[in-house]
Amino acid sequence: MAPASPAKTQTPPERHRNLKNRADLHALFYPKNIAVIGVSHNPVSGIKYVKAHEISGFPGGVYPINPKYREIDGRKIYPALEAEGVPDIDMAIIAVPAANVPAVIRDCHKKGVKFAIIFSSGFAESGREDLDRELRQAIAEGPTRVVGPNGLGVYNQESRVNFLFKRKFELPGNISFIGQSGGTTARLLMSLDSIGIGMHNVVSAGNMMDVSMADFLRYFKDESKTKVIVLYMECVGNGRDFLAALRETTRVKPVIIWKSGQSDVGATAARSHTGGLAGSYQIWVSALRQHGAIIADNFEEMRDFAAALAVNQALPRGNRVGIVVSGGGVGVEIADVVRNHTLDVPELTPETQQKLAEFIPNINTSFRNPVDLGEYGYVPHYYGRALKIITEDPNVDVVLTVREPERSPWFEESMNIKNIDNLNILALQIAIKVGKPIYMNLSPNSDLPEHHSLRYAFRKRLLQEIGVPTIDYTPHTAKLLQQLVKYKKYLLQELQ
Amino acid sequence: MAPASPAKTQTPPERHRNLKNRADLHALFYPKNIAVIGVSHNPVSGIKYVKAHEISGFPGGVYPINPKYREIDGRKIYPALEAEGVPDIDMAIIAVPAANVPAVIRDCHKKGVKFAIIFSSGFAESGREDLDRELRQAIAEGPTRVVGPNGLGVYNQESRVNFLFKRKFELPGNISFIGQSGGTTARLLMSLDSIGIGMHNVVSAGNMMDVSMADFLRYFKDESKTKVIVLYMECVGNGRDFLAALRETTRVKPVIIWKSGQSDVGATAARSHTGGLAGSYQIWVSALRQHGAIIADNFEEMRDFAAALAVNQALPRGNRVGIVVSGGGVGVEIADVVRNHTLDVPELTPETQQKLAEFIPNINTSFRNPVDLGEYGYVPHYYGRALKIITEDPNVDVVLTVREPERSPWFEESMNIKNIDNLNILALQIAIKVGKPIYMNLSPNSDLPEHHSLRYAFRKRLLQEIGVPTIDYTPHTAKLLQQLVKYKKYLLQELQ
Repeated sequence: MAPASPAKTQTPPERHRNLKNRADLHALFYPKNIAVIGVSHNPVSGIKYVKAHEISGFPGGVYPINPKYREIDGRKIYPALEAEGVPDIDMAIIAVPAANVPAVIRDCHKKGVKFAIIFSSGFAESGREDLDRELRQAIAEGPTRVVGPNGLGVYNQESRVNFLFKRKFELPGNISFIGQSGGTTARLLMSLDSIGIGMHNVVSAGNMMDVSMADFLRYFKDESKTKVIVLYMECVGNGRDFLAALRETTRVKPVIIWKSGQSDVGATAARSHTGGLAGSYQIWVSALRQHGAIIADNFEEMRDFAAALAVNQALPRGNRVGIVVSGGGVGVEIADVVRNHTLDVPELTPETQQKLAEFIPNINTSFRNPVDLGEYGYVPHYYGRALKIITEDPNVDVVLTVREPERSPWFEESMNIKNIDNLNILALQIAIKVGKPIYMNLSPNSDLPEHHSLRYAFRKRLLQEIGVPTIDYTPHTAKLLQQLVKYKKYLLQELQ
Repeated sequence: MAPASPAKTQTPPERHRNLKNRADLHALFYPKNIAVIGVSHNPVSGIKYVKAHEISGFPGGVYPINPKYREIDGRKIYPALEAEGVPDIDMAIIAVPAANVPAVIRDCHKKGVKFAIIFSSGFAESGREDLDRELRQAIAEGPTRVVGPNGLGVYNQESRVNFLFKRKFELPGNISFIGQSGGTTARLLMSLDSIGIGMHNVVSAGNMMDVSMADFLRYFKDESKTKVIVLYMECVGNGRDFLAALRETTRVKPVIIWKSGQSDVGATAARSHTGGLAGSYQIWVSALRQHGAIIADNFEEMRDFAAALAVNQALPRGNRVGIVVSGGGVGVEIADVVRNHTLDVPELTPETQQKLAEFIPNINTSFRNPVDLGEYGYVPHYYGRALKIITEDPNVDVVLTVREPERSPWFEESMNIKNIDNLNILALQIAIKVGKPIYMNLSPNSDLPEHHSLRYAFRKRLLQEIGVPTIDYTPHTAKLLQQLVKYKKYLLQELQ
């Protein structure tokens, strides 16, 4: 393709003239018409994006472009962006060889395309600094804003813009996510969807040559459906602007960040993955914390923190945890984990201990904290009454408790009680009305599919029906609570 | 019951005279005849132990004892240990109120019972120092060795001695376990059984007033079916003797220890759970490490480490990890976790990189280490060939790799390949013949029951059929490998 004429690139359509300086990303997440450049009969070509929007039921126009074809599998193919019949384009998805991308970007400028997603890879991450410079130059020449290169692009559950090539997700959500890895981005979407938690905006941002993490942060900050923001960062780009955007955003919404490239080898691998510099991890994490971020160290923490905040954004009033379990060993275990994360496990008030002693015998039980309800804890009626009393204790800011739905069938039979899981849900519904966060651990003690299914059904109800964050690995729960307490303090200082 | 006469307690049967100074625990794990003292119609009385041995199919004699009954649900009840028809007893299980336990112990001495399990609680852990002293005195008066009080007792898969009241486990195993929490002990048994890993000897040891962790360690050290020893400790008892026994044992077999009571609150909770002093955690863990122990910080680590060593006790030759994945993000992630645990991720030799480049195109792939096979990694033929080449690399001591069985059906359809999981198993079988440990992560990206089932089936095959430790949470894998490398160094120093 010929480079765009200077005259053309210097006079973009009026409405886009100042776009480089703004971050109005609305049209990126809610595009009206999409062009896909680089489609062929090869299923891994751009045609997969055309299909992705058929799968998601995207209601706008999708315009596949390739001068070599007139149609592919019954879909009309347009010869060029400028061709007759191609309307104004909000988003162009580019899937052509790296060397051809700059020319396509110039075509986008000419056409006045608002956003281009560059799916193509082969720039800095492949050591091709020459192509990298050429692409930067092309982007700078006109109004089209660019996401990528080397990224999957954008997903929005509501607008149905989509980069998932296999399946569709139906759940609306309140999480917006930016990730520098397509695989990790898809993994988070799938993981959360599988437990009934939808996501709202999702970006697989790749090398972030133009539209930056800061741009996305600022957009999500003001976007009304986003309640929780999650970032997976490999490289840091313009650190100063990013930290400024982070500070603006954490004043309004929680931001969970998993920063990878933590080690020498990880940083090198990150560079060959998304082409950027990882920076010193310790310095970065310290800066992120100072700007109000909640730090996740790995995928599993990011997933668990995101799921917890998606269902309940309430911050604990303080760091005093009430632990409610059945069993001495698990009480010792959770107390250790909680204390190791600088949270308190205060003794309950004498009044609370007295109230518990009124209906629970002092046989293999303990009412100080951790509270061990012994065998009585397996009876929903006792459990519910105790849970509410402990949640009401003035020494307690947040409750951490354990249920084991995989054992419910056995308890139902041996205690002749029906629907134990229902009764436990009811107990939690009543306790949560006290107004303090309650966190749940399902304490898996079997990987058998039938036991997993019982946990799975109970987990979905806890998350969806009553907004009880359910994290089975206590170190994750304690780490999140520790950070939420700090985040609350941060907000009080920042906003005073 | 009247206290035993001094004459009687001073002349125990000859064969038991020196038992207090020995630790021949064989009859504890392989008892011929068992008495259960404190049985009634109440299902939580000692009768549950009688039933437990019916469930497990214990082939020896079980003699329920209570002077108030002549039979319970068709089972003959004996009036006393000394009654006619009660033979020599290897193990008496005591489930009577705490205040009556010392007298029963004296009866055991009189009868020459080899071992007594005291299930009853209500001693130091309940603040009853008086009863605690009285029981210690009674134990000292005669030959019967005591496990507990406040413990469930002993399980052996082979002899069918059993403390599980609900179900039976059929799998033979090579793990022997001592735990100071019945709940935690049962949880580990169930967790491992559910993934096809049996346990050999299991002890829920309670307060450990007489038979100690050191006694169990020394017995397991010499016991031929035990290949891996796992301990859950709350209090430390006779620290000097324990550390000596630990050192003797780790020279022969790996010992995994989870020490709880790590925090102030945890230590207090431990004291009201099993009645002992937890000691300073930092000092203890340091001492345990110096004596060759592998440290787990929580239940999940203990479970994952135990499962890994049960299927493969080979120690890596060094700390150089080869990482084999499909996807740039997961490569960065695993490299970070591995490096953060002081393991190396060395660049593969040029020869290895060349061999990989001969059949895998350099498109979104990387052959340095972490090795990202890109889309080619999903094809078992490519994966298997690459895995073997990387395992053979002289720079690699241990391989860490990822498979995603939950995605296999989709790949089978889209790539028109049958039985991808079988082909992956075959690939691992071939690579493992190189002679280096291979660790697997199944990289869960969905909690849906149908996806869990696919992972579950694959996991069991990896563990059981080919001995590939399968840990999905990479920080656990890295932590275990880090400690196995140190354990190997420790052995080289100790045994030189």
